[in-house]
Amino acid sequence: MMHKQPAAKYRPFPAVQLADRQWPGRSITRPPIWMSTDLRDGNQALIEPMSPEKKLRFFEMLVKIGVKEIEVGFPSASQTDFDFVRMLVEENRIPDDVSIIVLTQAREELIRRTVEAAAGAKQAIVHIYNSVAPVFRRVVFGMEQDEIVQIAVTGTQLVKDLVAQHPETRWGLEYSPESFSTTELDFSKRIVDAVSAVWQPTPDNKMIVNLPSTVEASTPNVYADQIEWMCRHLERRASLIVSVHPHNDRGTAVAAAELAVMAGADRVEGCLFGNGERTGNVDLVTLALNLYTQGVHPGLDFSDIDAVRQVVEECNQLPVHPRHPYAGDLVFTAFSGSHQDAIKKGFAVQKADAIWEVPYLPIDPADLGRSYDAVIRVNSQSGKGGMAYLLAQEYGLELPRRLQIEFSRVVQHMADATGREVAAADIHALFSREYLEQVSPWQYVAHRMVEDSAHGVQIELSVAQQGVPQLRQGSGNGPIDAFVNALGLDIRVMDYHEHAIGHGADARAACYVELRVGSGPTLFGVGIDSNIVTASFRAVLSAVNRHVAMTGTADETVAAPMAA
Amino acid sequence: MMHKQPAAKYRPFPAVQLADRQWPGRSITRPPIWMSTDLRDGNQALIEPMSPEKKLRFFEMLVKIGVKEIEVGFPSASQTDFDFVRMLVEENRIPDDVSIIVLTQAREELIRRTVEAAAGAKQAIVHIYNSVAPVFRRVVFGMEQDEIVQIAVTGTQLVKDLVAQHPETRWGLEYSPESFSTTELDFSKRIVDAVSAVWQPTPDNKMIVNLPSTVEASTPNVYADQIEWMCRHLERRASLIVSVHPHNDRGTAVAAAELAVMAGADRVEGCLFGNGERTGNVDLVTLALNLYTQGVHPGLDFSDIDAVRQVVEECNQLPVHPRHPYAGDLVFTAFSGSHQDAIKKGFAVQKADAIWEVPYLPIDPADLGRSYDAVIRVNSQSGKGGMAYLLAQEYGLELPRRLQIEFSRVVQHMADATGREVAAADIHALFSREYLEQVSPWQYVAHRMVEDSAHGVQIELSVAQQGVPQLRQGSGNGPIDAFVNALGLDIRVMDYHEHAIGHGADARAACYVELRVGSGPTLFGVGIDSNIVTASFRAVLSAVNRHVAMTGTADETVAAPMAA
Repeated sequence: MMHKQPAAKYRPFPAVQLADRQWPGRSITRPPIWMSTDLRDGNQALIEPMSPEKKLRFFEMLVKIGVKEIEVGFPSASQTDFDFVRMLVEENRIPDDVSIIVLTQAREELIRRTVEAAAGAKQAIVHIYNSVAPVFRRVVFGMEQDEIVQIAVTGTQLVKDLVAQHPETRWGLEYSPESFSTTELDFSKRIVDAVSAVWQPTPDNKMIVNLPSTVEASTPNVYADQIEWMCRHLERRASLIVSVHPHNDRGTAVAAAELAVMAGADRVEGCLFGNGERTGNVDLVTLALNLYTQGVHPGLDFSDIDAVRQVVEECNQLPVHPRHPYAGDLVFTAFSGSHQDAIKKGFAVQKADAIWEVPYLPIDPADLGRSYDAVIRVNSQSGKGGMAYLLAQEYGLELPRRLQIEFSRVVQHMADATGREVAAADIHALFSREYLEQVSPWQYVAHRMVEDSAHGVQIELSVAQQGVPQLRQGSGNGPIDAFVNALGLDIRVMDYHEHAIGHGADARAACYVELRVGSGPTLFGVGIDSNIVTASFRAVLSAVNRHVAMTGTADETVAAPMAA
Repeated sequence: MMHKQPAAKYRPFPAVQLADRQWPGRSITRPPIWMSTDLRDGNQALIEPMSPEKKLRFFEMLVKIGVKEIEVGFPSASQTDFDFVRMLVEENRIPDDVSIIVLTQAREELIRRTVEAAAGAKQAIVHIYNSVAPVFRRVVFGMEQDEIVQIAVTGTQLVKDLVAQHPETRWGLEYSPESFSTTELDFSKRIVDAVSAVWQPTPDNKMIVNLPSTVEASTPNVYADQIEWMCRHLERRASLIVSVHPHNDRGTAVAAAELAVMAGADRVEGCLFGNGERTGNVDLVTLALNLYTQGVHPGLDFSDIDAVRQVVEECNQLPVHPRHPYAGDLVFTAFSGSHQDAIKKGFAVQKADAIWEVPYLPIDPADLGRSYDAVIRVNSQSGKGGMAYLLAQEYGLELPRRLQIEFSRVVQHMADATGREVAAADIHALFSREYLEQVSPWQYVAHRMVEDSAHGVQIELSVAQQGVPQLRQGSGNGPIDAFVNALGLDIRVMDYHEHAIGHGADARAACYVELRVGSGPTLFGVGIDSNIVTASFRAVLSAVNRHVAMTGTADETVAAPMAA
């Protein structure tokens, strides 16, 4: 529990002695080098790590958007990672201007295996690390500072010796004093200087010094102070690329990265949409687009941000939050009337290629392949809560988010068409008309279904097609399959949700089906019934009828009479 | 699309002339005043605004955790909000030490209605605002600076006159120059000074000056510069409470708030877990716990953070992201072996009430009522990807997140019991044994089900109970209902997911049911079948059998023979 006074258990992060700090007066005028660690730090923090196929898909997307430094794995710790790196190298999947990075602890056998993994690539960076913070030295390793330095120095020398045996590859070194942000600055300087003394980088062949906030432990200005201190005190600065690797434990990783770049960092490591250990690594998408909105092109292409998001979500099996900057479902949505009014006026006067100045929109959604949505709200005038609230109250309907957005367009359309505020009482009539009462061309009448564990599902379906009763039969592995077969239509079900309304004997099921008819757009249908199976049938027909209404009844795929 | 060179469309945010800024050398030693705008700014940005019941539930939770200033609505814009505020006042639901805040634009009829809404409360703050930024003056209002100042001054005078008529309430004024962060600082100073000249606050009866970043438009240090500039230049500073209201468009709202407090702000407005327009308001939970980890008690109690999260998620109908600082599902989970090892060593030496120093855990999870989870991973050694990856590959099984976590404990248990690394080959055997092959006491054999649109579902079920074949019959509104009735057990289904494995004729369904037997713990069962209905039956029995295995077969609820 939270102690009344936590001072005994936690302490303030110590300030950095840097009275003449320069970074608060600077701004960022060019992008840092971006390094994606999605396939390493991101991947190792997933509940479900990526398969090799997903890793490749992610890698190719990173290349496509313009990332030039990609950490591809920890090959000495995992055969999967080793095999993946070899595949990239041997199948020539790494573009000439992209460097792969392979991470390893600074231990002999692991370093050997790591160099072996990357050998043959055109450009590869061996990334060695060891933990340097006091708590690690004392509690985890039981080692003195000298021993910690020796690990890094010995490892660096071994990398240097090994890579010399593979001159076909242009090798680089990255060194990370892990837990830098909670380490004494003079000790971090000492160990980095010792590593660079061995590696002997030059201004033409720089060494990367990566200074992670392994766990974010202070306000971001302190991290910036630490970076500025290091940039001023490190030896061979002109031959170094100073890199930062912020984590987000305090929710300020983006700020930490930005202030650190102002403080002198040349390079940022992170993940798309902030995946990574615990609270994640810093989000490279937000960093890049923050620069973009200041007139500085980040060198990364997010002009189809939804496509990028889709790859990331599928590979990580983690959602991007609806309020995530630039990419979330809700960030270009205005609910309030005064916001909508201001945005409308802003769009009206905004000229192409003039300075972007639309109120409440920090970026033109079109730059990201997105659009601005004004969502009609009925709550403020009606006194009965919003559209979804009304539907929940009246029908117990819990609309999936995408359906809420789809239906808000229906409401908007009605508001535009009638030129008046949509009253609360209209909403459920509109929902009902749009989703529940569409009975043309197809209307559900009844069904009889026999399931048999051995023989699957047989269905006898009574439907009306344009008012004409018909009996159809079909079979399938399951009810929806059998139903679609009985209909004989070209339907692809994309998603469905079903939930109970009420409890006990009066409970009914509401089913929401998102489907595509032929090559049409995906759209929703809704069905309500006391039977979960019947509800799903009704939902399918609702979607099909809406498809016909939108595309015209001449659409043969669904409107023409079918052979029984 | 993203222009190659966005300089023509976007421009750098202008720097603040503040060469001798003090904030970068400061740290935060006491908490700001917290103001929750969950019920106003947060609520207006919801797809589904809160019902009055939800608003009350949220309000009471805010009071319970210790928030003393709560913005309860925009009563002049919404009858719901008006009624809600009246209900709070008339039913005496506002504790004596809590102030409610009511927002209104600075317009006469709206101000009258707003004062009317709050009259009778013990303490109420009327919060008036008007937009002051150049783009609003020019594009939205078509007004000069003088006219904009006049709106604020006239509004303030009206509030002053009106509240004098309700001396039973201790009134305060909050004034927000909306879009402060994109407004010329000297104009912001001018309008705030004009308002305070009318209101005439004193050091004992301060006026709140709220300086929002309505849209976040710069790095957070610039916002801090703006706040420091204002704190230095505003008249009557000793009689003002300077407040900030950061939005999160650039993902740096938490940093902006922290740096602004260092720059002199006394008060922070935000929402729990960062709800609010677009990308959200600043997250008060993260801000408070960031302070807590520095030994500064925030004055807010998050010792049962999961309970707070549950209220917020239910009221907002928006999820807290798995990587959200302090509260996300994954933030106290360690997947990597080296992290787990370091954490274990850290716990071993950590003494109660000593300075918290466990590696990779920035806060003691127990302080929040949470626990640390080590998730066993088989991918690094096995070379075949992780547990969930294996199940996806071998079975096409996409485990819901809670089931993944449940199953990881099963794996952990096996690892602990055998004292060895769990090999890849063991995983699917273990999953299968735990979920798919549990056939005691209950085993599914076959069913025959007749559905009739008019009469619901009739089921004939063939099951074995402890190896003894039985025929049972049941009926219900839907298949699961009929099945559970046929079994005759005290089962409450909490959640279910179902998805297809494969496509076409060979497709099967995997069903995951989370249920509770009697008063036992919720747990999962899994069923796989070519028929979606049969899969759900198998999943129910899987969960019931697991319940029996955990609680002992003597549990009469499920193990005793039932009357047919």
